[in-house]
Amino acid sequence: MLSNNLTDLLQIKYPIIQAPMAGGITTTDLVISVANAGGLGMIGAGYMGIEQLRSQIRDVKKHTQNFGVNLFVPEKFSAKSSEIELANKSLQPIREKLNVSEEHTILPTYEKELENFHEQINVLLEEQVRVCSFTFGVPDQSLISKLKERNIIVVGTATTVKEAMEIEQIKMDAVVLQGSEAGGHRGNYKSETADSLIGLMSLIPQVVDKVKIPVIAAGGIMDERGLVASLILGAKAVQMGTAFLTTKESGANEIHKNEILQTTEDEIVLTKSFSGKYARGIKNDFISYMEKDEEELPPFPVQNRLTQSIRKVASLEKNKEYMSLWSGQSPRLATNKTATQLIETIMKKATEPL
Amino acid sequence: MLSNNLTDLLQIKYPIIQAPMAGGITTTDLVISVANAGGLGMIGAGYMGIEQLRSQIRDVKKHTQNFGVNLFVPEKFSAKSSEIELANKSLQPIREKLNVSEEHTILPTYEKELENFHEQINVLLEEQVRVCSFTFGVPDQSLISKLKERNIIVVGTATTVKEAMEIEQIKMDAVVLQGSEAGGHRGNYKSETADSLIGLMSLIPQVVDKVKIPVIAAGGIMDERGLVASLILGAKAVQMGTAFLTTKESGANEIHKNEILQTTEDEIVLTKSFSGKYARGIKNDFISYMEKDEEELPPFPVQNRLTQSIRKVASLEKNKEYMSLWSGQSPRLATNKTATQLIETIMKKATEPL
Repeated sequence: MLSNNLTDLLQIKYPIIQAPMAGGITTTDLVISVANAGGLGMIGAGYMGIEQLRSQIRDVKKHTQNFGVNLFVPEKFSAKSSEIELANKSLQPIREKLNVSEEHTILPTYEKELENFHEQINVLLEEQVRVCSFTFGVPDQSLISKLKERNIIVVGTATTVKEAMEIEQIKMDAVVLQGSEAGGHRGNYKSETADSLIGLMSLIPQVVDKVKIPVIAAGGIMDERGLVASLILGAKAVQMGTAFLTTKESGANEIHKNEILQTTEDEIVLTKSFSGKYARGIKNDFISYMEKDEEELPPFPVQNRLTQSIRKVASLEKNKEYMSLWSGQSPRLATNKTATQLIETIMKKATEPL
Repeated sequence: MLSNNLTDLLQIKYPIIQAPMAGGITTTDLVISVANAGGLGMIGAGYMGIEQLRSQIRDVKKHTQNFGVNLFVPEKFSAKSSEIELANKSLQPIREKLNVSEEHTILPTYEKELENFHEQINVLLEEQVRVCSFTFGVPDQSLISKLKERNIIVVGTATTVKEAMEIEQIKMDAVVLQGSEAGGHRGNYKSETADSLIGLMSLIPQVVDKVKIPVIAAGGIMDERGLVASLILGAKAVQMGTAFLTTKESGANEIHKNEILQTTEDEIVLTKSFSGKYARGIKNDFISYMEKDEEELPPFPVQNRLTQSIRKVASLEKNKEYMSLWSGQSPRLATNKTATQLIETIMKKATEPL
């Protein structure tokens, strides 16, 4: 059960994938450690420009080929000026509090996002990255074919059975199933967020009954119990985010790591306030303060840009109340091991007789 | 793993408990079938008067002792007249549509609820029911002691680690962990609903690391995969609701059964509209129509009483759009087996080598 058609396809020893967390968490050190310990390391390249992406891929490739890259598929969006006005008005007191100057930011456009996405794809093709996973949507069929012709393994992200079935139908090689337990941004793209918050206990068996491509379970999985339970439910591997976020090799802010190590599952909420798209993280002053306007904020990635300086200054000043402290629903299981120790411990316990 | 300290305590062959679904679903036939197949049958007595409760207990006892009763612990509530007015105004068009006369209902009071609860407890003591489980709160320590002195096994319901820890601390014998996947009413009583929607993949291991009493997993579990995964995560048994609701012996309306057999996981939502307390069920016209007023409705059980005639008439007329179609998040795994066949199939597959 621990070795299967997916571990064979990915050429990895253990059915453990380190989730591609964006924003500098998936350092080269983390990706290499995971790969060397027998798992698949993933670069979270969602927000990366192409120079940064190419540079990290080359750094990782000096040590291992057992890694992949995750990209955000741009969605069409349009922000009303009234939404931007409201957001700026709501954010103003926070900017003043943190001494962030008022933003005269160039807001993102769909065209620019799409251009960057295609440039990112070109980097992956040029660098012959072995695995490419996608979040927030699915790429065109032609793009999938192009990647597959170059022997790149293509992985989608689904939160419902319908999304998983579409990912199979457009001939992706595998699908990450994101349960409601998962930290960070929701990966739903066909379903509304409220309808796609399915717990893994329900989601995995319902999906594996409907699709033949290998399923990777993600959300709240932190140790050998979550790994083996996911395999029993029908997954072929797990993708763990929060569990790797708190490891020594992760690039997450120390404040972020410590908050996860100290919080409890009932303090973790869904919020659109940081980015305009629902994401799961530890409740703090920013989330509470923005709650009243949550339904009227501009969409992702506009709101994300509007809160960028606040998050940056809060991180630099180690002010946990204004940072986005993404976490899944199992913070009590987080540890501050190294990524290598984490994988070794899980696999040792998973192979002990039950 | 399939036999353990909890199955010993409950004196059952298999670690399967049929969830106590209120409102006539847990017929005597269902409870007996589950017990005879090796599980624990449960009478959902939440809304029952004492004559009905005593009568069903005596009917079941003619055939088996392997059953329990679930009671709702009354919570203090007060409904503002403005809330009742709003609810009546919102419900009026639906009442007209269904030819339900305007309600001149005697609304529930906390005192009457409490009186009925204590009378229900007396019935359990007199009838020497083997297991008593509680939802929507925990009873006084003195009441727990009284039940335990009479050798009644006392089980609580928790949705967070804190709730489970309290249930252990007040010396209940076991705890049902209700994951976010679960159908019907949420059993949170210390936590806010939004903070207590924890998927079982996260909830089970975090709870079993903190409490020593046996844990029963509930929510989205329908087959041998859910059973074995729950045991791997640390539970000692599972409690299955939706899986038994669609069995032949269940007293659920045939429309309700058919809707579960036909729906999909992304059509299942949380709503307060039927009862004033959050519950999970299949989205229909009633839920959509009441959505706009959801935050201003009177609390449970007042709203429940106000919608009673609507639900009753809709059931009689087989009008699925105005019935409360409770369901967990795994409807695609529902079957129309008998309860006996369901348990036999699960246990046969659960004991096959993986």
